[in-house]
Amino acid sequence: MKIQLIHAITGINSAFLEYETEVLASYKRPGTEIRIRKIDNGSASIESHFDEYLGAVDTFRLVKQAEAEGFDAVIVTCFANANVDPSREIARIPVIGSGMAAMSYASLLGHRFSLIMASESSDYRHYHEASKLGFKDKLVSVRRTEFRVLDLLKDRDKTLAGFLVAARQAIEEDGADVIVPACFGMIGLAHEAQEILGVPVIDPAGAAITMAESLVRMNLSQSKIAYPFPPEKRRTIDIEPKTERELA
Amino acid sequence: MKIQLIHAITGINSAFLEYETEVLASYKRPGTEIRIRKIDNGSASIESHFDEYLGAVDTFRLVKQAEAEGFDAVIVTCFANANVDPSREIARIPVIGSGMAAMSYASLLGHRFSLIMASESSDYRHYHEASKLGFKDKLVSVRRTEFRVLDLLKDRDKTLAGFLVAARQAIEEDGADVIVPACFGMIGLAHEAQEILGVPVIDPAGAAITMAESLVRMNLSQSKIAYPFPPEKRRTIDIEPKTERELA
Amino acid sequence: MKIQLIHAITGINSAFLEYETEVLASYKRPGTEIRIRKIDNGSASIESHFDEYLGAVDTFRLVKQAEAEGFDAVIVTCFANANVDPSREIARIPVIGSGMAAMSYASLLGHRFSLIMASESSDYRHYHEASKLGFKDKLVSVRRTEFRVLDLLKDRDKTLAGFLVAARQAIEEDGADVIVPACFGMIGLAHEAQEILGVPVIDPAGAAITMAESLVRMNLSQSKIAYPFPPEKRRTIDIEPKTERELA
Amino acid sequence: MKIQLIHAITGINSAFLEYETEVLASYKRPGTEIRIRKIDNGSASIESHFDEYLGAVDTFRLVKQAEAEGFDAVIVTCFANANVDPSREIARIPVIGSGMAAMSYASLLGHRFSLIMASESSDYRHYHEASKLGFKDKLVSVRRTEFRVLDLLKDRDKTLAGFLVAARQAIEEDGADVIVPACFGMIGLAHEAQEILGVPVIDPAGAAITMAESLVRMNLSQSKIAYPFPPEKRRTIDIEPKTERELA
Amino acid sequence: MKIQLIHAITGINSAFLEYETEVLASYKRPGTEIRIRKIDNGSASIESHFDEYLGAVDTFRLVKQAEAEGFDAVIVTCFANANVDPSREIARIPVIGSGMAAMSYASLLGHRFSLIMASESSDYRHYHEASKLGFKDKLVSVRRTEFRVLDLLKDRDKTLAGFLVAARQAIEEDGADVIVPACFGMIGLAHEAQEILGVPVIDPAGAAITMAESLVRMNLSQSKIAYPFPPEKRRTIDIEPKTERELA
Amino acid sequence: MKIQLIHAITGINSAFLEYETEVLASYKRPGTEIRIRKIDNGSASIESHFDEYLGAVDTFRLVKQAEAEGFDAVIVTCFANANVDPSREIARIPVIGSGMAAMSYASLLGHRFSLIMASESSDYRHYHEASKLGFKDKLVSVRRTEFRVLDLLKDRDKTLAGFLVAARQAIEEDGADVIVPACFGMIGLAHEAQEILGVPVIDPAGAAITMAESLVRMNLSQSKIAYPFPPEKRRTIDIEPKTERELA
Repeated sequence: MKIQLIHAITGINSAFLEYETEVLASYKRPGTEIRIRKIDNGSASIESHFDEYLGAVDTFRLVKQAEAEGFDAVIVTCFANANVDPSREIARIPVIGSGMAAMSYASLLGHRFSLIMASESSDYRHYHEASKLGFKDKLVSVRRTEFRVLDLLKDRDKTLAGFLVAARQAIEEDGADVIVPACFGMIGLAHEAQEILGVPVIDPAGAAITMAESLVRMNLSQSKIAYPFPPEKRRTIDIEPKTERELA
Repeated sequence: MKIQLIHAITGINSAFLEYETEVLASYKRPGTEIRIRKIDNGSASIESHFDEYLGAVDTFRLVKQAEAEGFDAVIVTCFANANVDPSREIARIPVIGSGMAAMSYASLLGHRFSLIMASESSDYRHYHEASKLGFKDKLVSVRRTEFRVLDLLKDRDKTLAGFLVAARQAIEEDGADVIVPACFGMIGLAHEAQEILGVPVIDPAGAAITMAESLVRMNLSQSKIAYPFPPEKRRTIDIEPKTERELA
Repeated sequence: MKIQLIHAITGINSAFLEYETEVLASYKRPGTEIRIRKIDNGSASIESHFDEYLGAVDTFRLVKQAEAEGFDAVIVTCFANANVDPSREIARIPVIGSGMAAMSYASLLGHRFSLIMASESSDYRHYHEASKLGFKDKLVSVRRTEFRVLDLLKDRDKTLAGFLVAARQAIEEDGADVIVPACFGMIGLAHEAQEILGVPVIDPAGAAITMAESLVRMNLSQSKIAYPFPPEKRRTIDIEPKTERELA
Repeated sequence: MKIQLIHAITGINSAFLEYETEVLASYKRPGTEIRIRKIDNGSASIESHFDEYLGAVDTFRLVKQAEAEGFDAVIVTCFANANVDPSREIARIPVIGSGMAAMSYASLLGHRFSLIMASESSDYRHYHEASKLGFKDKLVSVRRTEFRVLDLLKDRDKTLAGFLVAARQAIEEDGADVIVPACFGMIGLAHEAQEILGVPVIDPAGAAITMAESLVRMNLSQSKIAYPFPPEKRRTIDIEPKTERELA
Repeated sequence: MKIQLIHAITGINSAFLEYETEVLASYKRPGTEIRIRKIDNGSASIESHFDEYLGAVDTFRLVKQAEAEGFDAVIVTCFANANVDPSREIARIPVIGSGMAAMSYASLLGHRFSLIMASESSDYRHYHEASKLGFKDKLVSVRRTEFRVLDLLKDRDKTLAGFLVAARQAIEEDGADVIVPACFGMIGLAHEAQEILGVPVIDPAGAAITMAESLVRMNLSQSKIAYPFPPEKRRTIDIEPKTERELA
Repeated sequence: MKIQLIHAITGINSAFLEYETEVLASYKRPGTEIRIRKIDNGSASIESHFDEYLGAVDTFRLVKQAEAEGFDAVIVTCFANANVDPSREIARIPVIGSGMAAMSYASLLGHRFSLIMASESSDYRHYHEASKLGFKDKLVSVRRTEFRVLDLLKDRDKTLAGFLVAARQAIEEDGADVIVPACFGMIGLAHEAQEILGVPVIDPAGAAITMAESLVRMNLSQSKIAYPFPPEKRRTIDIEPKTERELA
């Protein structure tokens, strides 16, 4: 099984790529091959709808390319299901966001979950996504850590500590019984955090990869009634698959 | 007062532009100056999320340009509030969609409103927009006419007739008491349709222009807590205002 | 355009009338003529459903009178849409409440708005109105200032100060991103408060007058399916338009 | 125990009064004394908000009078909880509507109930009442019979037949599993209808009287936090208890 | 009228039985005969779904026995409507839980009610029950006292004191305007607590008995469309009525 | 990885067991070992809450046994998450229902899904489960096929044909864009049905096994804040693991 993971941001450096590859490897099945790509044109990170839309066209190209090359599923990240709705329209293979996967598991394991996100992100995107997926009543809070997305990997211990502070507040003050790190920059912390917090902590990378594998295993994809192919018409922007290209 | 109307599509011809100018003139106040622009890069019309996102970058440029040139408000259309959320983040002046304006008036005038849209559009974008605005329980149905967006102006009588069929079904079968033509291609039909149907029919152009005028009059704009400016970061796509440019 | 503003209370003195006329003038369009009337029989102010219902019959008379005299729209106030539902049933011209107008704008400009009301009012009327209009999830709190409705104009500075305290709590503790003074006695504070608070503040008078103007401009009124004319029957209370009468 | 039943309408003739007394007697407890009053000023029947408000002041007088004379509880009818909210504010003894009582039992006995109402009434009042009480998701439909409120008692068999037609549609087409005659003019049909329909049918009179008895028995009344006494102020309409007066 | 009250727990001692009989006597009508039974097999008390399900089979036997012996209605308690749904399926006579009865009255008397429960119970069962009954928006909080269910009657004064502390927090911090002791071990405190707190306090025993009496009085029972008899099939567990048996 | 699948029913014959083993094998990963057990005491099938509760104690025993023997996860079926809530309380390893797994995938793949169930089941259990999981707005209908649960495997072609009729109605009349066979007796039809219907069809067996595998892979289980261990107390029913036992 071949899964394409698309970062809808430009700000992925080789250190994160290496770290991410390790984290994904710890969750994926033996037979699963994961290819990681980032977009060339867009924002370094996504902390707003603006950043999401800015990287849309390049995301579409990578989705089309993956489908053309025979990939079985596509994961688009950052967390907030960025560009997932339009990407689902143009593809036949399943396209999922890491956020929808993580929230889906969270809703199965408890009654009220909280998202812990980076400091400058706007929370309304998460509330709207949760609402679209049916989790409005289950999402009790969206809390901030003190870090910006792009700094999260610079100091893993500080990131974990900040995450734990916000998570404890979510548990004690908001009544959360499941915690979700709502940023792909916070992958790889779940096991440790879960041990300390005593409640389920859902890793966005683990959620995305196991969800994608499960859909492929069941031969499932997004409903084409729900996400119909856009009808043919004149469009001045081309999203045909690129020629071969690799991550820097 | 100067208002910038942005078509987030490329498929606006001079015939529609002329028609639209007339319709807008019939709703706007004497002192209001309206400038109409369409994007250069994107889709000919919007019938999917894909089409919406494709025109995003060019929409942002026109928003920034309008603000830089001292416009007081921006209307983005097609109907489904396309690119409005990210555009609100990058602007200080009010940015509204024609759909949010029309649904807002509809919700004030009755208990259950229906949207009548072009034939190939996907309805879920409308349900999600209505849900975000608080109108989930008021929006009783989204019905299709038999025309595609791009054909709507070719034969106005046929368009009106098709619209009336769908609107009557909405009233009789879905219990709608207010009707909204959910496509900017269907502007200019409201008075006639209202006369025939006997229920309020909200023109998207009239709704957008009066709403924009009212917000400017009250010195109101989107909350910057709700739609914060995206934090500074590296972005490879430039949306700075273009140099002077006119509609073809 | 002629708009009738009805105070469904008796406690309007000449000082407030003068102040109110000024505030309305700052929002209305050049061609709009506003006539202000108060009821003769009812309560000095509305802080309960009881007070609302007490002034209903006289409100109906003023609505009928306005329609008979060719007015284009009616605004009924105090804030909580007092007597608006029954008034809409008996009129063909649009009848709106200042509360529904203000909440409608508020819901368009942010994600969560708060109402700031006078001290002794009961908040449930506001929650029910918001719920009827679709804004249940957007109205995050109803907060009190330390003043009673009838005292609000005695000391404008103290009123503003009290308002700001409550508004700041709404923003910081309840997560509000838009603020609405939920009392017609608090009109004329919005610009100043918005400057200080940094979030949109919706003036109920401005909201009511621009909404009424917009509806008239679009030739819209409440749906007569939603608000049907009461069928003919024996009624012992007459609400036919009064003979000429002026505010004391 | 003494219970005051107030018809917030003027159109109660002696035939109905006699019939109603019998029906109430079949539901009440041996020790319960029921006094029936109608208002002097208002509408002959209630089929709109307008009719409700028109009889409000006289309803208030009867509520105050009942409390002053030592009654234990007040039932206000017609069905749609007419004038109940303001009446609860001015009284310490429990005030209930027949609609809230009937819907409350209905929600306990099934998953989806329907209201069957007279032909010309507007249904939105019922939806809003149901929503205020928490029954929005349980109320699956409001259906009309072919009769007007004032004609309902003229031909009991025809009324029953019309009621059964609408009730069967509610069961088969709307999925209702409990039926509520939503008009006080349709009291006394429940046992017969239930026998025929095979689902619970809630009599508004039975619901109101047993609910009032139960509240008194438990020493319960409306919360004065929820329905606070209106603060003292100048009011030009007097609702003090009337001197002795009897139904014609 | 004969009403069977079933404790779906084994931990009822003679002291509580005596106390309970007194409390029920203070609420029931003169002609009502109440028989109290506890199950033989299950948990000493219910503080989890597990405890509820453990006593289900024996509860079913007592329900069938009551119906076979001509009882008119069945109350199942503990508070959280334990085993009520399946018991309603197997019986024709009305089966109610004390929790549904109490929450039903609470929702009629105010806008926001709180449940006060014993210390170790899990609150989600209450939220789900409230949600099923339509009271999701009315139930503002579930608060704990410092006692376990089985200890509640050991020291009535301490129980009352603990209850009052939690109730006051519910009123002041959560905005509750009606209070419900959410444990059958806390019956008999309502009058005293209501006197002290100044808001309605609903006794679960009073609520259950008056609700059962009212349903019988109106000849109402659960809808058999909503709670159909389980179709015949092979079952290895017999729930036929037991032979005569008395409480120890 | 070892997964215990528990049928909370007694009516599993060897033919179904063989069929089921094949279906599960087609979904599970190479390293996953699945043990299937049915309860000894309960109902032959589950078409009511009564049937669910009847098999609860034996289900608990099998859950405890699986945990004691080192299994990694438990699936309880029939579809409607039977006995899952209490089973989650007593276990540390993840316990899931096939229904929650299937609805979770369904909600990710479309906007509105329908459940197709056997003929005599009651639909309210499904609506309540969907509501608890957050899918109230996504579950648009529950439709019946013409078969009873126990007959479903007798004639696979007839079952499939009946399923397709109901599924097509769900798609065309209810607007469903994803279909879920809501009965474990209908496993193994999904691929064929999806091919014919053109929308995603979620196999309950596939959903359960891939969900269980994913949770184990991520080291996740139900939150013990959400599903706390029942506190120690006297219980007369023992659910300790049984000694070795095999399916007949």
